[in-house]
Amino acid sequence: MLRLDSRDPDFGPSFARLLAVKREVAEDVDEAVRAIIAEVVARGDDALVDYSRRFDGHGPDFSAASLRVSEAEIEAALREAPPEALDALRLARARIESFHRAQVPGDRRETDALGVTLGWRWTALESVGLYVPGGTASYPSSVLMNAVPAKVAGVPRIAMVVPTPGGVTNPLVLAAARLAGVDEIFRVGGAQAVAALAYGTATVAPVAKIVGPGNAYVAAAKRRVFGQVGIDMIAGPSEVLILADGHANPDWVAADLLAQAEHDAAAQAILVTDSDALADAVARAVEGQLATLPRADIARASWRDYGAIVRVERLADAIPLVDRLAPEHLEIEAADAEALAARVRNAGAIFLGAHTPEAIGDYVGGPNHVLPTARSARFSSGLGVLDFMKRTTLLSCTPEALRALGPAAVALGRAEGLDGHARSVAIRLNL
Amino acid sequence: MLRLDSRDPDFGPSFARLLAVKREVAEDVDEAVRAIIAEVVARGDDALVDYSRRFDGHGPDFSAASLRVSEAEIEAALREAPPEALDALRLARARIESFHRAQVPGDRRETDALGVTLGWRWTALESVGLYVPGGTASYPSSVLMNAVPAKVAGVPRIAMVVPTPGGVTNPLVLAAARLAGVDEIFRVGGAQAVAALAYGTATVAPVAKIVGPGNAYVAAAKRRVFGQVGIDMIAGPSEVLILADGHANPDWVAADLLAQAEHDAAAQAILVTDSDALADAVARAVEGQLATLPRADIARASWRDYGAIVRVERLADAIPLVDRLAPEHLEIEAADAEALAARVRNAGAIFLGAHTPEAIGDYVGGPNHVLPTARSARFSSGLGVLDFMKRTTLLSCTPEALRALGPAAVALGRAEGLDGHARSVAIRLNL
Repeated sequence: MLRLDSRDPDFGPSFARLLAVKREVAEDVDEAVRAIIAEVVARGDDALVDYSRRFDGHGPDFSAASLRVSEAEIEAALREAPPEALDALRLARARIESFHRAQVPGDRRETDALGVTLGWRWTALESVGLYVPGGTASYPSSVLMNAVPAKVAGVPRIAMVVPTPGGVTNPLVLAAARLAGVDEIFRVGGAQAVAALAYGTATVAPVAKIVGPGNAYVAAAKRRVFGQVGIDMIAGPSEVLILADGHANPDWVAADLLAQAEHDAAAQAILVTDSDALADAVARAVEGQLATLPRADIARASWRDYGAIVRVERLADAIPLVDRLAPEHLEIEAADAEALAARVRNAGAIFLGAHTPEAIGDYVGGPNHVLPTARSARFSSGLGVLDFMKRTTLLSCTPEALRALGPAAVALGRAEGLDGHARSVAIRLNL
Repeated sequence: MLRLDSRDPDFGPSFARLLAVKREVAEDVDEAVRAIIAEVVARGDDALVDYSRRFDGHGPDFSAASLRVSEAEIEAALREAPPEALDALRLARARIESFHRAQVPGDRRETDALGVTLGWRWTALESVGLYVPGGTASYPSSVLMNAVPAKVAGVPRIAMVVPTPGGVTNPLVLAAARLAGVDEIFRVGGAQAVAALAYGTATVAPVAKIVGPGNAYVAAAKRRVFGQVGIDMIAGPSEVLILADGHANPDWVAADLLAQAEHDAAAQAILVTDSDALADAVARAVEGQLATLPRADIARASWRDYGAIVRVERLADAIPLVDRLAPEHLEIEAADAEALAARVRNAGAIFLGAHTPEAIGDYVGGPNHVLPTARSARFSSGLGVLDFMKRTTLLSCTPEALRALGPAAVALGRAEGLDGHARSVAIRLNL
């Protein structure tokens, strides 16, 4: 864990180094992914079956007919899932839906003084593919966070893909898919699943856009099929920045730092405070809590390699540092939390006050937990309804409106050397 | 030019081939671009000066001090620009600004029945870089279409880069930049300009996002710096689909097809009609108009290689074809234009009625002319104010709200094997 003090003379370069830290190991899987996609395009379901047998350990009885998860299996998962977790998923779904429903954008159409009718119309994507990782990173909460906004947007078809290594499916993942309104579930993962969603096979119809997290192969496949279909952001390791004054509870702050650190050894948890006492107490509390954390190995590595405590003279001094880091999650536990939050430009999501641990937002708050990482909150937003819709603009001129606007278009067409543009207007006006 | 008839038995495969046509030659410039970016990162302004001398033909007197276009040069450009074109740009700017001002999104904050305060806040990007091509593809209208929405979004700093091959600058481009509120203009282009905007040099401060069209080098550089900064879509060759009934004026339709075709030999212009007579008349009119079009060579190649006339039984039959093509521009010149438009899901922009040639939208209509190409209107929108803003979600729980929501978060954290998440909630509730 790095300790910095903004009053030190070398703070500038030290903070710049913290900003520049690369937490992702770039795995060079692009050639393997290219070959997998080509196979799926050429051989369709047969390729999916072969790869699923090879990578997920399915037996020779695994066939194209095995790809689709059946209604009976989904019903069984709902019966099998722990009732308490299922109830929690229902609460989460309702709150996520309510929050995202307010994001549905409005259409617009107006006629101006010249007689030009103009505006736009939002429409839902015709179909969306949702990638869900298998194994330990198979999170039902992420199924909700990706699928519910798509449903709220009005996407008529959501196809989910999830690898089932060793034949094991997380019943809560299937339950979450059902609760979220996912229409089709396929037992396939990796680059082959992304290829199937992008290009289609006999069993998996192609989609317009693919969303959801995945490993290096999935990320590389998404980059490669981009253009053929839309993709969401490529998520990097998770991160939190906690801005706290001397009144914050060090045990609570330490718990929040570790909740982030336990995600991934490449996750990053940073405390920025104006209190030496809090800084010291949090550092001690982190060590204490690590002793009893089940995922202590991961969290310890993250805290050791990428954790930081930054001491600032006044919390207001932290705002420019926050904006440069542009954290995925920003917690503010300070007396003037609202005023500080109002001055932040770059953050994926802000959690205000001591009673709003980031984990509430991961599950049941309502806002989306798919958020920009790796400083991309400087230029992008978390997942939302707009990611599943697109805008078509509309323009309509009366003959009078064309007479009013036409000469300017003719002038600009000619000035740009595009006489065909100018002519398409002039021919209607006998110019 | 391809002629298809939806009543032909082999129409399905023929239309699928039309859909699959690749109109872009993939130039492999990635290695050259990688080297250029590395040079700019390592040597800053010196690299920019070297590349500008080499690629744009500047002499040995071209130095770092030459990079920034001066206030005096911009003033001179305003004096030098043809007054008629300048007036047209002023009209265009006002209409583009008015249209985009209606796109500014609203913030939201509400407190629900549990005492959870939640919502979101939109903020403008802190800075934007605008790439403007040099030479013949240097379009002042594109400067307006990219810069005005950024200004409307509230971006405090817009830095424009434009190569000036042979020292020549298009005065209308400088004038458009001034009218649009561009803050800084740099005389540099290519991958080196993109690198400077992404990483910064002594003269060019880095930006948060880079937008604007460019050649293969610029596109490859944008792909490569993505992540370090945001980028807009990578635009492909332009395209129009005109849906017209037998009452349409064939000369007007032909002029609109050629206005698209003259952009680029890889542009695509398609007519879909329910009238054999119109189809024949338009085909003849295109040939006739080509004879007098200054850019006839380009337009003829585009029409020959990628143009198409598709005959359908009824115009309503065209809607699924339109949705599959997802054209950048859709013109509807038919009696029931509004009703047909309402049924289209996938199009970048729709132009309604015989008096709305697409060129009006290129210049002075108000909607943006930066639109999704190559079928990407299935999943993306034209440029707008939202591309220059990002959303930060907000969440705040009272102690009571945390008591109400906390147990569900604890249950989900444990169900996902993330005990640190569960603990960060439980520790506050003494669970």
